[in-house]
Amino acid sequence: MAASKLDEVVSLAKRRGFVFPAGEIYGGTRSAWDYGPLGVALKDNIKREWWRAMVVTRDDVVGVDTSVILPTAVWVASGHVSVFNDPLIECLSCHKRHRADTLEEAYAEKHGHAPENGLADIPCPDCGAKGQWTEPRDFNMMLQTHLGPVADENSLHYLRPETAQGIFVDFKNVMGASRSKPPFGIANIGKSFRNEITPGNFIFRTREFEQMEMEFFVTPGTDEDWHQYWIDARTRWYTDLGINPENLRHYEHPKEKLAHYSKRTVDIEYKFGFTGSTWGELEGVANRTDFDLKAHAEHSGEDLRYFDPASGEKYIPYVIEPAAGLTRSLMAFLVDAYDVDEAPNTKGGVDRRTVLRLDPRLAPYKAAVLPLSKKPDLQAIAHNLAGDLRQNEWMVAYDEAGAIGRRYRRQDEIGTPLCITVDFDTLDDHAVTIRDRDTMNQERVALDRVQDYVRERVSEKRVRYPEGPASITGATAADGSVDVSQESGEDESQPVQVAEAGGEY
Amino acid sequence: MAASKLDEVVSLAKRRGFVFPAGEIYGGTRSAWDYGPLGVALKDNIKREWWRAMVVTRDDVVGVDTSVILPTAVWVASGHVSVFNDPLIECLSCHKRHRADTLEEAYAEKHGHAPENGLADIPCPDCGAKGQWTEPRDFNMMLQTHLGPVADENSLHYLRPETAQGIFVDFKNVMGASRSKPPFGIANIGKSFRNEITPGNFIFRTREFEQMEMEFFVTPGTDEDWHQYWIDARTRWYTDLGINPENLRHYEHPKEKLAHYSKRTVDIEYKFGFTGSTWGELEGVANRTDFDLKAHAEHSGEDLRYFDPASGEKYIPYVIEPAAGLTRSLMAFLVDAYDVDEAPNTKGGVDRRTVLRLDPRLAPYKAAVLPLSKKPDLQAIAHNLAGDLRQNEWMVAYDEAGAIGRRYRRQDEIGTPLCITVDFDTLDDHAVTIRDRDTMNQERVALDRVQDYVRERVSEKRVRYPEGPASITGATAADGSVDVSQESGEDESQPVQVAEAGGEY
Repeated sequence: MAASKLDEVVSLAKRRGFVFPAGEIYGGTRSAWDYGPLGVALKDNIKREWWRAMVVTRDDVVGVDTSVILPTAVWVASGHVSVFNDPLIECLSCHKRHRADTLEEAYAEKHGHAPENGLADIPCPDCGAKGQWTEPRDFNMMLQTHLGPVADENSLHYLRPETAQGIFVDFKNVMGASRSKPPFGIANIGKSFRNEITPGNFIFRTREFEQMEMEFFVTPGTDEDWHQYWIDARTRWYTDLGINPENLRHYEHPKEKLAHYSKRTVDIEYKFGFTGSTWGELEGVANRTDFDLKAHAEHSGEDLRYFDPASGEKYIPYVIEPAAGLTRSLMAFLVDAYDVDEAPNTKGGVDRRTVLRLDPRLAPYKAAVLPLSKKPDLQAIAHNLAGDLRQNEWMVAYDEAGAIGRRYRRQDEIGTPLCITVDFDTLDDHAVTIRDRDTMNQERVALDRVQDYVRERVSEKRVRYPEGPASITGATAADGSVDVSQESGEDESQPVQVAEAGGEY
Repeated sequence: MAASKLDEVVSLAKRRGFVFPAGEIYGGTRSAWDYGPLGVALKDNIKREWWRAMVVTRDDVVGVDTSVILPTAVWVASGHVSVFNDPLIECLSCHKRHRADTLEEAYAEKHGHAPENGLADIPCPDCGAKGQWTEPRDFNMMLQTHLGPVADENSLHYLRPETAQGIFVDFKNVMGASRSKPPFGIANIGKSFRNEITPGNFIFRTREFEQMEMEFFVTPGTDEDWHQYWIDARTRWYTDLGINPENLRHYEHPKEKLAHYSKRTVDIEYKFGFTGSTWGELEGVANRTDFDLKAHAEHSGEDLRYFDPASGEKYIPYVIEPAAGLTRSLMAFLVDAYDVDEAPNTKGGVDRRTVLRLDPRLAPYKAAVLPLSKKPDLQAIAHNLAGDLRQNEWMVAYDEAGAIGRRYRRQDEIGTPLCITVDFDTLDDHAVTIRDRDTMNQERVALDRVQDYVRERVSEKRVRYPEGPASITGATAADGSVDVSQESGEDESQPVQVAEAGGEY
């Protein structure tokens, strides 16, 4: 069932112009995907809500936009040149390379049991030669390119595999220019590139993808509280925007498997329903300690300590990193919003209806304007109304083709919250009928009230986020901090419990 | 004078956190720049205004977001693999490569005259060997990378040098999913990469940069009118957002120098005041004919014709392309807004004041909230006010440090249109003083009116764009179409004349 829902979402995404395979007329590629008219609107809305929650409405976070290509020394200092590797085996016959674990899994799926003699039993998927493999060798996952006229060691550069390092490298510049002091954060949205050996699962694992990362710099000793604060706040961001808490869980990285920079990492996972592994990572929230700033201070020779005028001491801040996958979250919002129910048809029966129950803040179109007929006077009113609504920077659909019921269906399946019908009565009563996507209720609204009506619906769910962990700011839990159950589930994962919002906070 | 103004802008940009050299703690790079807290806000505002003018408020343009890495076949079909080249000469002694024209210019600048024997007189800047150069050889300007585990011919891919090709490749998918028909456009914003041999002039010529491109598909025969429409509309976009028309000009590409795909190209240039060449290209508006769609149809085997149900005919649309450099336009907006005037000081005299006269729609901060003292009751009101304003998605500064005059200066030089001072009277009259950046006039405004006051100032200049060229839509010039002088200036460039807006249009 779950896998089939995923298939339906992927199919809808392609058909209605959310996501296309990049370069599809040339056979496409699994490396990257293109976002169509609805996809780019949804993606921009997700970005905007993240930026709004993380930067615009907060006193303690500023934004940056750092470059994809950084000096190579950055990736040496961060450890990416030495440890950002996948072990690969190479076929001795055709010299193609593969991940051993992927080959073994495929064998097990096909035969119903693991290969008895390990790799010796497994033929090369490219040439068929059986069991002729090298020992595993490390393969760096950063994409390489050469800058300048000569391709040599000096001109070798890497495309960033994460946006985070751009933040660390700019830490001193940003702190100075924005006159910030810990606790404060720097947020960054942008494309990253990883040479994944096995891209797949639609837009979940690609070689080109987009991230929303924030590095939050804190006084050592307060890092554990802030870490928990950000795990809670980031979880809350997804549920505030409509993700069903039952489809989220926390995965606590076991101590012995933590990344080299991390003191503790908790992933926020979504129940995508992939074949094989149901859950997939949306976001990792890591306590990176002072690893990165210390490494860059050592390698660059710059003093990256913060001078605290209160204590007269200098220290390298600890860093809490909520690192979200933008394109992954887009996929999660699509899957979670996808629903099929029934709608009344004109014959007194019911039709199957596909509906994307996207939060109005995320929906590509905020409203659709539908003139009931092609009569010029109805069209003129409808055109003017759509034009007026668009002045608010809302994407507004305009559809005059076909029966009204069919037009509702077209808007339902792309998540448009409101359908505004201009009918013959409009000429007399200067009012329109507004239909709600979810309840299918209809309401008559005066033309000069439509702007306000839409505005209320588009922004009604906006909430303020708490300013800091209770232990630091002195705020009480009644202020709305998020309660995530501490009970340990099996395989280190925990169900998510989100407290109801207690008014504005 | 001009060069020194440019230097002052660059210095301000770095000091206040608009733009930093990427990876500066490692010595930086001329290839790419990072955008700091104010730069990312300005850049996002420019993007938003472009997207608003080109997509959101128009009936006839949809948006996409296409990938940086496309199948290699795309770049073969587009001609980039064969003709996107710079001719370079190589030093026979040290094998470093250079552009011959750059070397000759540098020689002429140093010696006051051109080298008498051409390249034979010029020593290698790297090793000093004199006149030992190869013949010029073509050097492709696309950055290369390899996808997948093996670096060979099959895995070779290019980073896109323009966002336009992603649009052409998706043309059929987008037209189908959005049910569009000519005339209609597809807009795309994103990063592109070019292996420039001589990056320079701050963020004007970099290897990593950002573009805002739109391909507008029209019926052949209407292409010349639409071309002129877009030249006018795009010129108008810059002047509407505050660029002084005297600092813009049109450069008509001479017929014999047109790019291989172009029937006519007009560049919109800005008077940056670079040393050597004063003017620099902001945007090229090209009539690309059916070159690209035809090439992709041939190479991919897909039928990329539009079927016109009215005439029963199929045709490949012609394409008008307004291709703007986002990062270049950011630089132009900064330079154009930069001003120095005088402001009264507390001693009855005047101080030199640096002020960025950015349009409020582009200004990073829409307002600054300044509590006159650090008294808790003033701070509480100021904090609440800033928090309320931020709920509108406005970036709002908060500054409580130093004399109020110095705080005004800090906001003036980053272009904040409104400074809102919470003073002791506020406790009694529930009002604040709002100071205008440009006039320095002050006005007392009730606290509960501040939101509306700021909203009016931020969006007052928004205009509607005309729907199409007069010859096609039947609209008259009185509707506000842009009048660009057709008199030919020297070296193919023309001064820009922009008609005054006649109300909403």
